[in-house]
Amino acid sequence: MGFSDKNVLIVGLGLIGASYARAIRKYIHPNKIWGVDINREVIDLVKKEDIVDDAFVNCNNILKSADIVIVSLYPQDTIDFIVNNMENFKQGAIITDTCGLKSSLVGKINKVIRKDIDFIGTHPMAGKEKGGFVNSSSELFVNSNYIITPTLNNKEENINIINDMALKMGCRNIIKVSPKEHDEAIAITSHLPHILAVALMNTGNSLKDIKYLVGGSFKDTTRVATINGELWSQLFMANKENLVKVIDEFQKNIECIKSAIIEEDKEKLNEAFKKSCDGRREIQL
Amino acid sequence: MGFSDKNVLIVGLGLIGASYARAIRKYIHPNKIWGVDINREVIDLVKKEDIVDDAFVNCNNILKSADIVIVSLYPQDTIDFIVNNMENFKQGAIITDTCGLKSSLVGKINKVIRKDIDFIGTHPMAGKEKGGFVNSSSELFVNSNYIITPTLNNKEENINIINDMALKMGCRNIIKVSPKEHDEAIAITSHLPHILAVALMNTGNSLKDIKYLVGGSFKDTTRVATINGELWSQLFMANKENLVKVIDEFQKNIECIKSAIIEEDKEKLNEAFKKSCDGRREIQL
Repeated sequence: MGFSDKNVLIVGLGLIGASYARAIRKYIHPNKIWGVDINREVIDLVKKEDIVDDAFVNCNNILKSADIVIVSLYPQDTIDFIVNNMENFKQGAIITDTCGLKSSLVGKINKVIRKDIDFIGTHPMAGKEKGGFVNSSSELFVNSNYIITPTLNNKEENINIINDMALKMGCRNIIKVSPKEHDEAIAITSHLPHILAVALMNTGNSLKDIKYLVGGSFKDTTRVATINGELWSQLFMANKENLVKVIDEFQKNIECIKSAIIEEDKEKLNEAFKKSCDGRREIQL
Repeated sequence: MGFSDKNVLIVGLGLIGASYARAIRKYIHPNKIWGVDINREVIDLVKKEDIVDDAFVNCNNILKSADIVIVSLYPQDTIDFIVNNMENFKQGAIITDTCGLKSSLVGKINKVIRKDIDFIGTHPMAGKEKGGFVNSSSELFVNSNYIITPTLNNKEENINIINDMALKMGCRNIIKVSPKEHDEAIAITSHLPHILAVALMNTGNSLKDIKYLVGGSFKDTTRVATINGELWSQLFMANKENLVKVIDEFQKNIECIKSAIIEEDKEKLNEAFKKSCDGRREIQL
């Protein structure tokens, strides 16, 4: 499958969008790659670094020439952008996004989508604790997981194009699940760890000289505690039902360990440890 | 301060002990460096790799020549070793340990210690999710924190020797706190993150295809979920009082975030995020 006749447009050049741009530039070589961002300073940086063929603060004129549009904005902005530009996309274009939630977003977009356009929801499971264009990297996706959430509306050949793009950018595993399954899974694999990072950091905040008393485990667990509040509030609240369910389950697991410690029940502790050892070895990449 | 006239004995050549041996061999160059381990296979490996001057399964003969003894065993074994060998140590020797808990251990050892011997408790805040000699490294301590828990019994010059050794092995920060302060701090900075790793992994265990659905945050938070059950059961139960207190506090923080999500209270969420962002930036190394 070739990209040499395809024009790719990336909308939003933050950490994820600009990393797409760099990875596509380096590994995919489409006919043209364009970038759009409302921030003029970002556009200047993008042009200076020559990671796209051209970059704009407004994509009105370029949209009708783009075969693949990668929208890398916050969830609500992603929906607004796609809905508001529905009449401007090129005939037969593939539109994809990078949002961390899928059910509501895919549903809203599919309600208004043109028949000739294919919207394929994706969630690249890659990121950094520091966002923004300046932290973007062509290697961000290397060895990471890439989730595609196809619907019955999608054409097989277009799903394959997105699949191929992810592989070429270095993603190790590409999994296809429904938007609903995605949101249930992500509550455990992404939202919950972020909440734990915040809660652990806030438990540690009262400790004097904590900087000199931490080891690797505290540092790793709190790595994502420098959370982007605006983005993650949106994600948490939009995934409320799934998230509250897994927080409840997590709280039961913590309570179980706590009571085993209080009762000095070594057997119960070892049971929890054995389960976590086996589970962690399964996900070892 | 020189180590060139000192003989160093390391007792227990697992991950931590063998990493001491390698780091001391590479960066400190004492007169002699000896190793002891009850496992004959480990002794053979140690000799083959030439990381000590000599290694033994029994240290009866060597103990009386060692100026610095680094005991790197499980907590109870550390106490037993030091107590049982009290009459065998060299006149004026410095004994140190590497245990993750201090109050009870330091107390028990100080009760029976010879007047001429200095026991200086230490806790190198370095480790790996995989233990054992085969995972040891001369660089394990580089950029890590090193906690010394001096008591009034310790001679200033001996504390300085241990301090100097840690610096030369590459530790970045050396902090001195009382054994009690150490155990309170470690409940937050080490024990709690390990419990969260286990509880998160056990929450994720029910998820089909989890391997393909995780990103960096889940992987980092569960890194230490492959926990050494025997060692950590001992540590958790011995630090029960402090640990239960911080689990309670952590549970309050989780409950606060959960209720903010349920109530869609963005302000309350952002307050928690702001606090965790500020705290995490403080401990950035």
